[in-house]
Amino acid sequence: MTETLPVGILGATGYAGTELVRLLGSHPRANIRGLGSRQFAGHSAGEAFPGFPELDLELESEDVQPCLWRERGIEIVFSALPHGVFAEHARRFLDAGMRLVDLSADFRPGADKAYEERHGLPHPGKELLPRAVYGLTEWCNGELGGADLVANPGCYATALLLSLLPAVASNWWNGEPIVANALSGVTGSGRAPSSTTHFVECGNGATPYRVGESHAHLVEMRDAIRIHGVAQNVEPRLVFNPHLVPMARGIVANVSIPLAFDVSPAMAAELYQDRYCNSAFVRVIQGNGLPETRHVRGSNRCDLAIRVADAGRLLLVFAAIDNLVKGAAGQAVQNWNRMMGWPDTLGLPQDAWVNA
Amino acid sequence: MTETLPVGILGATGYAGTELVRLLGSHPRANIRGLGSRQFAGHSAGEAFPGFPELDLELESEDVQPCLWRERGIEIVFSALPHGVFAEHARRFLDAGMRLVDLSADFRPGADKAYEERHGLPHPGKELLPRAVYGLTEWCNGELGGADLVANPGCYATALLLSLLPAVASNWWNGEPIVANALSGVTGSGRAPSSTTHFVECGNGATPYRVGESHAHLVEMRDAIRIHGVAQNVEPRLVFNPHLVPMARGIVANVSIPLAFDVSPAMAAELYQDRYCNSAFVRVIQGNGLPETRHVRGSNRCDLAIRVADAGRLLLVFAAIDNLVKGAAGQAVQNWNRMMGWPDTLGLPQDAWVNA
Amino acid sequence: MTETLPVGILGATGYAGTELVRLLGSHPRANIRGLGSRQFAGHSAGEAFPGFPELDLELESEDVQPCLWRERGIEIVFSALPHGVFAEHARRFLDAGMRLVDLSADFRPGADKAYEERHGLPHPGKELLPRAVYGLTEWCNGELGGADLVANPGCYATALLLSLLPAVASNWWNGEPIVANALSGVTGSGRAPSSTTHFVECGNGATPYRVGESHAHLVEMRDAIRIHGVAQNVEPRLVFNPHLVPMARGIVANVSIPLAFDVSPAMAAELYQDRYCNSAFVRVIQGNGLPETRHVRGSNRCDLAIRVADAGRLLLVFAAIDNLVKGAAGQAVQNWNRMMGWPDTLGLPQDAWVNA
Amino acid sequence: MTETLPVGILGATGYAGTELVRLLGSHPRANIRGLGSRQFAGHSAGEAFPGFPELDLELESEDVQPCLWRERGIEIVFSALPHGVFAEHARRFLDAGMRLVDLSADFRPGADKAYEERHGLPHPGKELLPRAVYGLTEWCNGELGGADLVANPGCYATALLLSLLPAVASNWWNGEPIVANALSGVTGSGRAPSSTTHFVECGNGATPYRVGESHAHLVEMRDAIRIHGVAQNVEPRLVFNPHLVPMARGIVANVSIPLAFDVSPAMAAELYQDRYCNSAFVRVIQGNGLPETRHVRGSNRCDLAIRVADAGRLLLVFAAIDNLVKGAAGQAVQNWNRMMGWPDTLGLPQDAWVNA
Repeated sequence: MTETLPVGILGATGYAGTELVRLLGSHPRANIRGLGSRQFAGHSAGEAFPGFPELDLELESEDVQPCLWRERGIEIVFSALPHGVFAEHARRFLDAGMRLVDLSADFRPGADKAYEERHGLPHPGKELLPRAVYGLTEWCNGELGGADLVANPGCYATALLLSLLPAVASNWWNGEPIVANALSGVTGSGRAPSSTTHFVECGNGATPYRVGESHAHLVEMRDAIRIHGVAQNVEPRLVFNPHLVPMARGIVANVSIPLAFDVSPAMAAELYQDRYCNSAFVRVIQGNGLPETRHVRGSNRCDLAIRVADAGRLLLVFAAIDNLVKGAAGQAVQNWNRMMGWPDTLGLPQDAWVNA
Repeated sequence: MTETLPVGILGATGYAGTELVRLLGSHPRANIRGLGSRQFAGHSAGEAFPGFPELDLELESEDVQPCLWRERGIEIVFSALPHGVFAEHARRFLDAGMRLVDLSADFRPGADKAYEERHGLPHPGKELLPRAVYGLTEWCNGELGGADLVANPGCYATALLLSLLPAVASNWWNGEPIVANALSGVTGSGRAPSSTTHFVECGNGATPYRVGESHAHLVEMRDAIRIHGVAQNVEPRLVFNPHLVPMARGIVANVSIPLAFDVSPAMAAELYQDRYCNSAFVRVIQGNGLPETRHVRGSNRCDLAIRVADAGRLLLVFAAIDNLVKGAAGQAVQNWNRMMGWPDTLGLPQDAWVNA
Repeated sequence: MTETLPVGILGATGYAGTELVRLLGSHPRANIRGLGSRQFAGHSAGEAFPGFPELDLELESEDVQPCLWRERGIEIVFSALPHGVFAEHARRFLDAGMRLVDLSADFRPGADKAYEERHGLPHPGKELLPRAVYGLTEWCNGELGGADLVANPGCYATALLLSLLPAVASNWWNGEPIVANALSGVTGSGRAPSSTTHFVECGNGATPYRVGESHAHLVEMRDAIRIHGVAQNVEPRLVFNPHLVPMARGIVANVSIPLAFDVSPAMAAELYQDRYCNSAFVRVIQGNGLPETRHVRGSNRCDLAIRVADAGRLLLVFAAIDNLVKGAAGQAVQNWNRMMGWPDTLGLPQDAWVNA
Repeated sequence: MTETLPVGILGATGYAGTELVRLLGSHPRANIRGLGSRQFAGHSAGEAFPGFPELDLELESEDVQPCLWRERGIEIVFSALPHGVFAEHARRFLDAGMRLVDLSADFRPGADKAYEERHGLPHPGKELLPRAVYGLTEWCNGELGGADLVANPGCYATALLLSLLPAVASNWWNGEPIVANALSGVTGSGRAPSSTTHFVECGNGATPYRVGESHAHLVEMRDAIRIHGVAQNVEPRLVFNPHLVPMARGIVANVSIPLAFDVSPAMAAELYQDRYCNSAFVRVIQGNGLPETRHVRGSNRCDLAIRVADAGRLLLVFAAIDNLVKGAAGQAVQNWNRMMGWPDTLGLPQDAWVNA
């Protein structure tokens, strides 16, 4: 019988938070001992999570006292609070001796400037930013092992960076604009009701939104490109067109990368297969197949397909992930596995929810 | 390390078959060693099940040789072949010493007559019919333990019988018509493409179909009512209006049962809670909640809610199941658990696929 | 060139209001001259209705001054304000000499009691209630001609009353409980964002809600049954189970009516065909067909199918309407056509929006 | 009372054909006198089109005799037959003196080669190809007036060409690859049931398909770019990534066009507004809005939005159309209007089907 570790989850009733509850609820080393939720504070887990009938715990307010959680033995806290909230709470949890995985943008690259722009105030956890490890798991080396503050990547950034970094890191890109397009399911817009997420407004139709260069995810993508690419002194040229489509979960994304030299389809496939052959959750599809959201739904996988166009001068990479799993809660757990020295795959599903 | 048993699945690439692959693939005592499929015979599991990347097995034709499967150690076969197919194959598998759980209607009550009507020929496994145990798990007593041929109930029958049998078996029903209504997701219509299941024809709209008294499921429901009810010499009066609604999985059903005497809401709730308090997968919702398909999606649970109307003379029972789990593959595995003397819950999920 | 009449619409940007804008925008005798909207007051029609690019009018606040509208020549006002709002405004519009069609429940049967229960105050337009004509068009005789305050029926009541009134009015019903079930699209829950209408909560799943006897629509249905039935001194026994299903528009409903004597399918079909043969918008489907929401989407039709069960003792009637057209804005326009002495069909679509 | 002209529709029961029936059924100058359909030959319109209850005509086989239609006075035939079928029939209809609008690819640019590749035989109407006018209405000049064979553009080509031709025709494009992405609803895959269009396979998920350079639509796009662009002697560099998303109708598309010189947002907006200011059905959205499928559903409009990225060196154009209207039947009717010298807008809807 393996020992379990008490874990805490903040923002537990949002979509990413609920997914953390699901994944950690069946993780062989996790024992959920703390659940924070603004909306369901004081309610039983039975009321907050009617789909998880066996969870038996009362939800606490968002203003969890770190020392109380520490007394319960909680050493790891996952936060799925909205952007801008955990920025001011993280310090207290760290001071109480807990390690943190934050699913918001608060400690990602560029968080400092983004917080100031949004709130008109300095980032309240500014001094922690250098300490935060950006947890795009497959592109981390040893740094997660000693981390006590992990910034979990955004869902779009996860799909797009896994798609473009192998080419960028190998100096295949010629520096001309990379065009990225992505389609996201509605869970990506969060659980708070709004006209954007109303069934009648977003169902049975599709729409681009915040296109071009305005999306917050561009900042973290550009930063990762600078880190893993070569020409670190230039601002990577990248446009990104996200779309909202009527499905609950999933992202399908593609990038068009202008190349510095001609490549063949075989070369391109080999580059990606070599890069990811030891990554349990990144699958480079062989042959004619293309990534589909339904093949990764509920799973922590990222499926990729590689194509070459324009007579070998343009690389096209297609990706599919479940935005709530590999794009959020699953990658957070994968990062925790790394922090603990466990295999990436511990407690994380490969199988998709089929025909759902 | 617990020993696993080799299992075989026929009709493995239909929706119920795929669900068997999913559930048995993670069942702690099962080891999938045979997969039969008309459509994907000769293909790898990777091609047939892109959502299950770790399954490593070649699919065989529908005309599996039972002796070959027996040589591989397979002692239990689950068949998700279409109605009318396994009727003629079951004998061979039984003769080879295997136990069978059939998800089709071929060995359910009334199968004899139904087969003749549909095919114009006598049921080819007619002599096996008395041997078949009708596997509505929560209403089976010891009989599954010794069974070698289990007829798994239909999805509608599962939801409706779990709803009405407690009242019927307690003589609450006055014999006037029970009105049953149900809404089913599109997986209930099977994987074969047709105009019925075309996205444009069935999406974004709802329709009743085969309403009134014509549905095949009525036969098995009437039989179960006779067995568990009292007035076995009369044909139970029952109408059933199924509807197709645009969701992938799930059944929501309700029954209106005219009562022989006045009952209070508390009496009604108590009857159902007492009946199912030891059933791990049937949950009687307390308070004002009502069953929703999304709370049981991917789970083997059946959620029930009990209401009393018409001044205590009418009982309303509402149910939700996942048609592919409790309504098909999950109940099949639950029956296998019973056949083996294992707990009902072994390898079967309580948790739902949330926000999917 | 036929002369057009100036019309005004209150609550113009909700779902029923927008549908009024659509229908009156192409009605040969209507000229939209006033649009009231809480949410879009001060905006142009182009901003409020991006789907109607040719509409050129500024939206006014909800607190429209009736005299200003009267000065613009408006003689007819359609109100799609939420329940409880027009109750206090109607008087002012009537006093200014305008005729009114109200799509809320404020002037329907039982409005008096319902308002008090909901608001804890007396209905502010109480004295107008006797003057209100309940506009279930096909069951109105001459009374719409002289009406200046028409209470448009609810969407569920429209589908269910058109289904059951022919049998009830012919004394076929034996008085035992009528069981009504209905499935509604999400526009039926209104445009205000809520967890109920969030794509992720209501998409890809189905749920019953406010089942049994608690639904407000039961009051107006019972009243209409009393008026058109015979036994007016008893409370009609009726249970109603509404469901929310993931489609934008449409209601599919059915009623099970226990009969006072045995009837044949032919008798039943004849009763309904005779009753509705002169109703342009009610179509009794011949043969085996059943009503489907997609065949009435966008149209003012109500499709019906008639079945007999339980050896002739139970009548089953199935109906489909578009909840925003025949169930709201379309019937409102149909009532206006009657008020003006025009044909029912003027400006109202028979054709459905197919493959949408 | 304006005189109507008898029209005939081939392939009338597919999705584009049904849309022709809908639009021509309410066109003030059309009188549908012939309907050909493989699947519904011999059936009444009532059976074939349950959503159009007033249509009263018997459907004929696909092998319509042109002379019989001619005798009925039909002078214009719209064909929505599948690709490859009308190629051999067109001649007979032309010989019988009828004018033709073909919605398939059979007479579009590149049809010759495409037919041979697909069928292994020479295009049977090869000699007619030079006579065919490519009917991208807004980019036709007088040539539709005298045309007797109009090749209606594909749905993707319509959205993409309307997006990129203004920039290309003004020599803004620098010749580096244009990246086009598009999302299409399921009607785009046709009415024939297949695993692609099965609700469970394509619902609640998204997938790219035939990406890169392999899509047939690329041929007609490249041809139009050559015609309206300048460098006619080079093969336009263009990649195209279509996606299938779970909606019934609609295309959302975008193109990224690398520019020969820097442009400002204002210059870009002006270019498009000037180009389309006299086009009734192309609307350049002002301000921050972006095209959405729901704003053009059921309408013949194409909504465009223009953005500039990469410091003025990359033009992004976003478009939304209804694939069955502007992308098929609506544009066909618009072309007929031009053939007859009527206004583009005659009988064609500007208003969208809202909240559907």
